[in-house]
Amino acid sequence: MELSPLAAELYHAVRALPLICPHGHVNPRLLADPAYAWGTPVDVLIIPDHYVFRMLYSQGIPLPEIGIPARDGTPPERDHRLIWRRVAENWYLFRGTPTGYWIRRELADVFGITEKLDARSADRIYDQISAALADPRFSPRRLFERFNIEVLATTDAAADSLREHQQIRESGWGGRVVPTFRPDKVVLVDRAGWRDEIAALSSVTGISITNYRRYIQALESRRAFFKQMGAVATDHDAATAYTEVLSEGQASTLFDRALRGTLSPAEAQRFTGHMLVEMARMSVEDGLVMQLHVGSVRNHNGPLFERFGRDVGADIPAQAEFTHNLRPLLNRFGNQPDLHIILFTLDESTYSRELAPLAGHYPALRLGPPWWFHDSPNGMRRYFDQVMETAGLYNTVGFNDDTRAFPSIPARHDLWRRASADWVAGLLQRGLIDAEDAAAMMHDLAYGLAKRGYKL
Amino acid sequence: MELSPLAAELYHAVRALPLICPHGHVNPRLLADPAYAWGTPVDVLIIPDHYVFRMLYSQGIPLPEIGIPARDGTPPERDHRLIWRRVAENWYLFRGTPTGYWIRRELADVFGITEKLDARSADRIYDQISAALADPRFSPRRLFERFNIEVLATTDAAADSLREHQQIRESGWGGRVVPTFRPDKVVLVDRAGWRDEIAALSSVTGISITNYRRYIQALESRRAFFKQMGAVATDHDAATAYTEVLSEGQASTLFDRALRGTLSPAEAQRFTGHMLVEMARMSVEDGLVMQLHVGSVRNHNGPLFERFGRDVGADIPAQAEFTHNLRPLLNRFGNQPDLHIILFTLDESTYSRELAPLAGHYPALRLGPPWWFHDSPNGMRRYFDQVMETAGLYNTVGFNDDTRAFPSIPARHDLWRRASADWVAGLLQRGLIDAEDAAAMMHDLAYGLAKRGYKL
Amino acid sequence: MELSPLAAELYHAVRALPLICPHGHVNPRLLADPAYAWGTPVDVLIIPDHYVFRMLYSQGIPLPEIGIPARDGTPPERDHRLIWRRVAENWYLFRGTPTGYWIRRELADVFGITEKLDARSADRIYDQISAALADPRFSPRRLFERFNIEVLATTDAAADSLREHQQIRESGWGGRVVPTFRPDKVVLVDRAGWRDEIAALSSVTGISITNYRRYIQALESRRAFFKQMGAVATDHDAATAYTEVLSEGQASTLFDRALRGTLSPAEAQRFTGHMLVEMARMSVEDGLVMQLHVGSVRNHNGPLFERFGRDVGADIPAQAEFTHNLRPLLNRFGNQPDLHIILFTLDESTYSRELAPLAGHYPALRLGPPWWFHDSPNGMRRYFDQVMETAGLYNTVGFNDDTRAFPSIPARHDLWRRASADWVAGLLQRGLIDAEDAAAMMHDLAYGLAKRGYKL
Repeated sequence: MELSPLAAELYHAVRALPLICPHGHVNPRLLADPAYAWGTPVDVLIIPDHYVFRMLYSQGIPLPEIGIPARDGTPPERDHRLIWRRVAENWYLFRGTPTGYWIRRELADVFGITEKLDARSADRIYDQISAALADPRFSPRRLFERFNIEVLATTDAAADSLREHQQIRESGWGGRVVPTFRPDKVVLVDRAGWRDEIAALSSVTGISITNYRRYIQALESRRAFFKQMGAVATDHDAATAYTEVLSEGQASTLFDRALRGTLSPAEAQRFTGHMLVEMARMSVEDGLVMQLHVGSVRNHNGPLFERFGRDVGADIPAQAEFTHNLRPLLNRFGNQPDLHIILFTLDESTYSRELAPLAGHYPALRLGPPWWFHDSPNGMRRYFDQVMETAGLYNTVGFNDDTRAFPSIPARHDLWRRASADWVAGLLQRGLIDAEDAAAMMHDLAYGLAKRGYKL
Repeated sequence: MELSPLAAELYHAVRALPLICPHGHVNPRLLADPAYAWGTPVDVLIIPDHYVFRMLYSQGIPLPEIGIPARDGTPPERDHRLIWRRVAENWYLFRGTPTGYWIRRELADVFGITEKLDARSADRIYDQISAALADPRFSPRRLFERFNIEVLATTDAAADSLREHQQIRESGWGGRVVPTFRPDKVVLVDRAGWRDEIAALSSVTGISITNYRRYIQALESRRAFFKQMGAVATDHDAATAYTEVLSEGQASTLFDRALRGTLSPAEAQRFTGHMLVEMARMSVEDGLVMQLHVGSVRNHNGPLFERFGRDVGADIPAQAEFTHNLRPLLNRFGNQPDLHIILFTLDESTYSRELAPLAGHYPALRLGPPWWFHDSPNGMRRYFDQVMETAGLYNTVGFNDDTRAFPSIPARHDLWRRASADWVAGLLQRGLIDAEDAAAMMHDLAYGLAKRGYKL
Repeated sequence: MELSPLAAELYHAVRALPLICPHGHVNPRLLADPAYAWGTPVDVLIIPDHYVFRMLYSQGIPLPEIGIPARDGTPPERDHRLIWRRVAENWYLFRGTPTGYWIRRELADVFGITEKLDARSADRIYDQISAALADPRFSPRRLFERFNIEVLATTDAAADSLREHQQIRESGWGGRVVPTFRPDKVVLVDRAGWRDEIAALSSVTGISITNYRRYIQALESRRAFFKQMGAVATDHDAATAYTEVLSEGQASTLFDRALRGTLSPAEAQRFTGHMLVEMARMSVEDGLVMQLHVGSVRNHNGPLFERFGRDVGADIPAQAEFTHNLRPLLNRFGNQPDLHIILFTLDESTYSRELAPLAGHYPALRLGPPWWFHDSPNGMRRYFDQVMETAGLYNTVGFNDDTRAFPSIPARHDLWRRASADWVAGLLQRGLIDAEDAAAMMHDLAYGLAKRGYKL
């Protein structure tokens, strides 16, 4: 993204700072396996990127035609060069979108490809990417180093063995890769398969989870293990920010009903709302930063979910509410200055109305960066515009790349640094801050806020 | 609207493209009657334009004083020159509003009047407009040609005879004017007069609507007739986007209750929600594009409605919700790539939160242009800003003028083309797209998207 | 805030106009007592400013350490120089915030201090402010004159004696200071202490409030007294904009229950909703302008409220709804052109969706300026952007400083005048208005709208 001269100057002072990646979805196997093979350009750039295939799907291109496997055994297209051509022919769909921009930057900055992707260039670009992916200098660990990543957090289920993380630590390779404790599968009692997940949690902890107290013990035990493996944070998904403080007796009763499969939807909401408060309690005790992402209706497209399963681009935001919903949790733990709760929203109307005022008051609260659909040039601009005056920069935590697409990480951070420079330059130009403030803010946006916010 | 040099260049490349007018409220009589007489400047510019008189009313000017007739027999002011003077004296109220801008452009571009409207110029301008309106070169058909309208869709009730459309087709005149099927009066069961409308529908179709099945047959029959008369689309108004799939038995039961006048408000909502799904089903079958406009509380001002009836400017938006409400419909028909459902909202908080993610996923969904109050320089800018990154340009459908004020059509399209150029120039300047993309996007915004989106 | 040359020119034409301050929270004692002593810089700039201390608190600084007294007897820090140093060391937290900007302007324009506030300059600046505060030229009355305040409205409880206002009037000093009738304490029946407030109201009016009719008489009597003391407006806080028209019998029944302490929360909402309608009725009769501020959840932070009481920065906005909620009131009184109801919101999503359309239709409605958290450079820009096209400038009322920090008044008005110039310059530059319009709009934004909107 091109910048004004003033913004460009601010950006250049921070463009080469190391990357802090405190929240993302990179598969740790990439970095655990020194001989990791990338596969084709489609394996790297298309199939794992639901931003890419949701747009193609929205224009009527069936998912199997771009390599997405169906549950029902429909074979996906296996000719990846053909898929790549199909994508290239339709690349105009990404005009003006962040995906179009990221992939262009990624091709240029990681793979050295500056030609525009379209039907004519598709084969040449496919060959160039393929050649690079086969080159040992493009192995994940070499890219990690070249990208200047200081720390990379993955996201891991509560019952995960963290075997790859163990392998990375034992390999002698110097890259810092840390897990993040994400207990959704064992906390969201109303999801299909919850009891299987509880069984897995029992198994991995050696604690037979037959009641609420043991359930809490098992969770605490896993948090301790994650922390020992380098984790600095937990991550929680919820349909809403609803929280409620239950007594231990109430929580036990609901937990028993959940185990027996007799919990009503209303009770499930109360229980998960209570578990958010419990997670905050554990964070006060063990110091892990607590991340809370709310407001996405998962698997909105029922027929597509039936055929293709989760994460095929049909998670759709809905209205969010924080002021009333978070009050029980905040009244219990929000005044703890050492607790860090980081909030994410998909409902931008909550930026100025709820989140900025809450973060600008409660010591425990900080705001995460613009999330998901809003992780874009305009989305970042709206975030700076609507959040910062009330929350204050120092109640935010810099940037998350939040991606499973490892080679796109530098492009994402670079966009954030440019968007940050654009915002700070605007303040400087209007005389709202001076040059000293601007320089300090840029360093914090690019580096310091993420490091401190996540206690890294 | 003045543009930067870069935007002006983009605008000039499309400014003279034909106008696609796929959604509007022009009275087809204007074009059916070769000898149509416009009346006075007040008849043309003030009385049919609720944007104009709502603002004057909001500042305490009684509606009869500007020519709006009351139901109770209060005679409206009949001296149109006097009304024009009154409007001109108060024209400062429109400073910075889109109405002020449109009417200024309309006076300049259609009538050649560049003098500013105020108390001093009122009479001169009145005389100039009056003279033009009497000139055969200003007849609706001549203006249609001069405006370079490629196609104009009107909006017509389900039971409408489409007589004027028939007259236009039989007249030998070459202008393409097509009807749009708007069945609200026979679908919104809770509106006063619904049973009379059903009687009218029975009468016009020759199908005695005594049960649900015949009701559906009658609707299908009218859709076929509209399609035969050139219609490409249907249009649906609803208080909310609530949808629900009822079984035929359930729908029949509710329909019977509606005929007997014993439907509860909750049942009425379920029935109308079901009918939206039925309309989507019919669109899958007959190929008509389905437009859905939601979120306006009609006739909010009870006392004014009592005195003046519908459409006196008291339709006020309320919160809208699409993610949950549209899910039943979308799970039934949203994955049909040949179905086009075009959504409109008055609640801009749904742009980035709900509509763009939905349209960026479901093959059947497209977003309509900024609607009604948002059909303005800033409204368009916010739409581009909040919709495009996530939905993608190609899940939108260009522009609708949505007006009953025929002579204002070019000014409205021109504003859209300028606002589009402003947005595209911003992308180009920031290096987010290149010049080739920019040119293609401009053509699509001005022409191609509307044509393809409405299957024209 | 620095402006473009065009905006600067527009700003300079109005920068020296007198200040109209129709809504604020200055303590009238400042102006009643000719020998009023300011205290320390911390007494003037920190302790009364919840914008300042909420931000410091959000970063973990305990309130007593910056001088805020607790209810539980915890002694606050008494060394104000030490507090000032603490604030100065943390002043970087206000980078890019309106508080940072206001205080910088206030130091420069009122106290002549242009040095940047930080740890190094803290003592020097403390001494400079202290010296100024002790100087008779800095007494509140002298500042009032120097600030060129034409009129200043305070906010006063219904049972307030208005003694200070009486003293100001009797003192022979020429400054115009008027009270505002704020009956929340006697209207919000569900607040703790309501019956005590009713007793106080009985006492001050001499009307023994034993039933609803006497309650209404007492309120009318106080309104008459306030009006006689110069009041031009009333001010109402409510959690929501809910209104309902009750019969006198229904209202009496609920009032009796409230007196007996047996009112349910739902009944309390109905009663307060009815009282808003009653207040509009009284405004029609006595001509007082009615201000309505809704959408703040007061004392959100329970533990902090327990320790420190009201107004410690824990009032958090929540979703607001006006379209449905205000309909009963507007259907009763919204068509009265002499009634002025001024609405304020903390939920910006209501600007374009509800408030602008409502104000652009109902003669009685006008929109207040951006309120509280939105009283900032970006907040003002969003307000102009989202409100003006639909509401029209002449359905708004200019600016309110809404502050208890008397010396900050000029900085706040100055920011509004600059932000206004920035908006008007944008319209002028885009050719949406001409220079004549621009000049008139600037004068109205800076002066005329507030004066006419508040009938001053």
